[in-house]
Amino acid sequence: MAKALPRSPLAPAGFPALPPVAGVRFATAEAGVRYKGRTDVMLAHLAPGSTVAGVFTRSATRSAPVLDCQAKIGADSEAGAAILVNSGNANAFTGRHGEGAVRAVTQAVADALDLPAARVFTSSTGVIGEPLPHERITAKIEELAQALSGDRFEAAARAIMTTDTFPKGAGASVEIGGKTVTIVGIAKGSGMIAPDMATMLVYIFTDAVCPRPALQALVSELSDRTFNCITVDSDTSTSDTLLMGATGASGVDVSGSEAFREALHGVMLDLAQQVVRDGEGATKFVEVAVTGATSDADARTHALAIANSPLVKTAIAGEDPNWGRVVMAVGKSGAAADRDRLSIRFGAVLVAENGWVSPSYREEDAAAHMKGQDILIGVDLGLGQGMATVWTCDLTHGYIDINADYRS
Amino acid sequence: MAKALPRSPLAPAGFPALPPVAGVRFATAEAGVRYKGRTDVMLAHLAPGSTVAGVFTRSATRSAPVLDCQAKIGADSEAGAAILVNSGNANAFTGRHGEGAVRAVTQAVADALDLPAARVFTSSTGVIGEPLPHERITAKIEELAQALSGDRFEAAARAIMTTDTFPKGAGASVEIGGKTVTIVGIAKGSGMIAPDMATMLVYIFTDAVCPRPALQALVSELSDRTFNCITVDSDTSTSDTLLMGATGASGVDVSGSEAFREALHGVMLDLAQQVVRDGEGATKFVEVAVTGATSDADARTHALAIANSPLVKTAIAGEDPNWGRVVMAVGKSGAAADRDRLSIRFGAVLVAENGWVSPSYREEDAAAHMKGQDILIGVDLGLGQGMATVWTCDLTHGYIDINADYRS
Repeated sequence: MAKALPRSPLAPAGFPALPPVAGVRFATAEAGVRYKGRTDVMLAHLAPGSTVAGVFTRSATRSAPVLDCQAKIGADSEAGAAILVNSGNANAFTGRHGEGAVRAVTQAVADALDLPAARVFTSSTGVIGEPLPHERITAKIEELAQALSGDRFEAAARAIMTTDTFPKGAGASVEIGGKTVTIVGIAKGSGMIAPDMATMLVYIFTDAVCPRPALQALVSELSDRTFNCITVDSDTSTSDTLLMGATGASGVDVSGSEAFREALHGVMLDLAQQVVRDGEGATKFVEVAVTGATSDADARTHALAIANSPLVKTAIAGEDPNWGRVVMAVGKSGAAADRDRLSIRFGAVLVAENGWVSPSYREEDAAAHMKGQDILIGVDLGLGQGMATVWTCDLTHGYIDINADYRS
Repeated sequence: MAKALPRSPLAPAGFPALPPVAGVRFATAEAGVRYKGRTDVMLAHLAPGSTVAGVFTRSATRSAPVLDCQAKIGADSEAGAAILVNSGNANAFTGRHGEGAVRAVTQAVADALDLPAARVFTSSTGVIGEPLPHERITAKIEELAQALSGDRFEAAARAIMTTDTFPKGAGASVEIGGKTVTIVGIAKGSGMIAPDMATMLVYIFTDAVCPRPALQALVSELSDRTFNCITVDSDTSTSDTLLMGATGASGVDVSGSEAFREALHGVMLDLAQQVVRDGEGATKFVEVAVTGATSDADARTHALAIANSPLVKTAIAGEDPNWGRVVMAVGKSGAAADRDRLSIRFGAVLVAENGWVSPSYREEDAAAHMKGQDILIGVDLGLGQGMATVWTCDLTHGYIDINADYRS
């Protein structure tokens, strides 16, 4: 089931060089949950005094690990914390067995690291509906606890991959009051996305001092502008999880720091866009920028209608500047639009304005933009000040290949 | 652009034998709007005394012909009526030119048939954003008016096709008070669907006596249970139109007749399902039946989330009984669900119940169902009495082929 998919043509050149984050250590192991010959568990340990915040899928059928994380995330503690992630099995739709598996894993981690179980967060990603063979994971906890080390970001990013074709990491350093604060994150996911073999998981670490409520507010706000602005196929996982830990080791309090906020936004946007760049079957990276809507919420509704339209996405795959499909998507979105005020751009090319094709439009100009790897669709509603940007990819034969998995 | 697509594997054996409807006559012609070597305009004439009702797309960017129909549909008239449809050009997003084209065509039909322009309804289907060459249509109106004849259903159904791979017709006769009432309909469409080359158009005729408000109520109600319960790709056309005319020639008043209502429901459901069976690239016909929801509206939300999920649709294409993706779709729909009360069937095979895989489930049983051409996905929420059924098709390489139209 762990298919050797070719590296996405939209992938970055390589995994970035990332500085260690004081107070955070990682280890990975081959537990054989489902995959053979690769790592499939990742343990992260955060030093005592760390604060942890999180954002989770809103799915009504969310997995046992997500429910467990949500029950724990709002509490303060001076103890350290740990994050244990396995790939290969999502422990979702597994009933009471699923809860028991989460308890077994968290307790084993708590025992090995001398933490309260309430400070151990877990994620699982992979197939749905099959019992998690948790004893394969617990058998590796001691080995993981012994191996913890500060500079294992790429190894950690690799252990949590499923249908991902490349490991995803991003980082930033920011000077605050003459001291350096570091932020590093890893992610996995090939979309919003397939619960069978893909899900979005994100773990971000910083050595900043940040009280839990402030950290939670920051993560929630920035998720709405990054991870909640990407879509591959409009499908939502039962397991989507973002956890952020702040160890405080730098001694720099970043509450209210605009510089920290901007740096964190950059890391989150980078990771979110890497998830899109690894979208199943993707050959084009697409930015949909909507302006002139009656509200930001309306702009977002239009942008997602365009980004999720199979007809828009297949036209992009075909390098076809098919602006009629953009008109269609705006029309069906349900948000306010006036046909005769609408304008549409492909890249810098003004395609349509005032409800009809622009007098200056030449199809060869738009077609040239569509041949590139980075596509921009700009839509102005001409109604107000609302704006939103979302990122997506095209819909190709590769998506069908990956997801219409013929069983014999 | 009029690609010779192979006939859908889900198509019926042939066009049905349909009885004439007294008071309705048809003609078709080759106007060369866009296609060569095939008919592309259809004229229907309804005798004086006919009532007309209609249902239209809710798109905010609807086409000029739709806006014109909507302006006319609520008025009563003793004059006859006419419907003129062209394929090849949707006259959508064509600004003021589009309104002028509608006026030119309706006036030409009104003149030729001695009708008020307010009784001439038009539809256009095909490319968006290009001016409709209406003079090619008006040049054919006299020829069409001379050729009107009562038994041209198949020819009429063929003239309005775009990416359709077969013409769609259905009919029923019903005995009321010892007299026979006839209902016949034609449709085109390969989904909800692509505005570039596909749209859903439906024309239904009966010789019943039915006052306009009663006819409108009936058509609106039954559309919600038929045409509004199908989806191919979640995309909505700017041109979707359903018009129904009742000539009264049978002398049988059907207001309040349950038998007529049932017969009309049957004709509409047949046509709606034929549209799904011609879904772009479809190889499987899929019924999604949701029960046990807190309301019918919630059931419909769940059913559409399942039917529109690219991951569910690709799994069906791959004949993969991937019930985890059904769980995912229920979870993301936004309607009420309780993971631990959910049960899922593929055909007659109970796959999951009470939040986990059923003890009786054997994957080979579900896999056998998935190999068939007609797939049933049954979901029971276990919460209440709400239910809904929708129909869709799978998502295949054929859909990508048709819609990722490479231009050189």
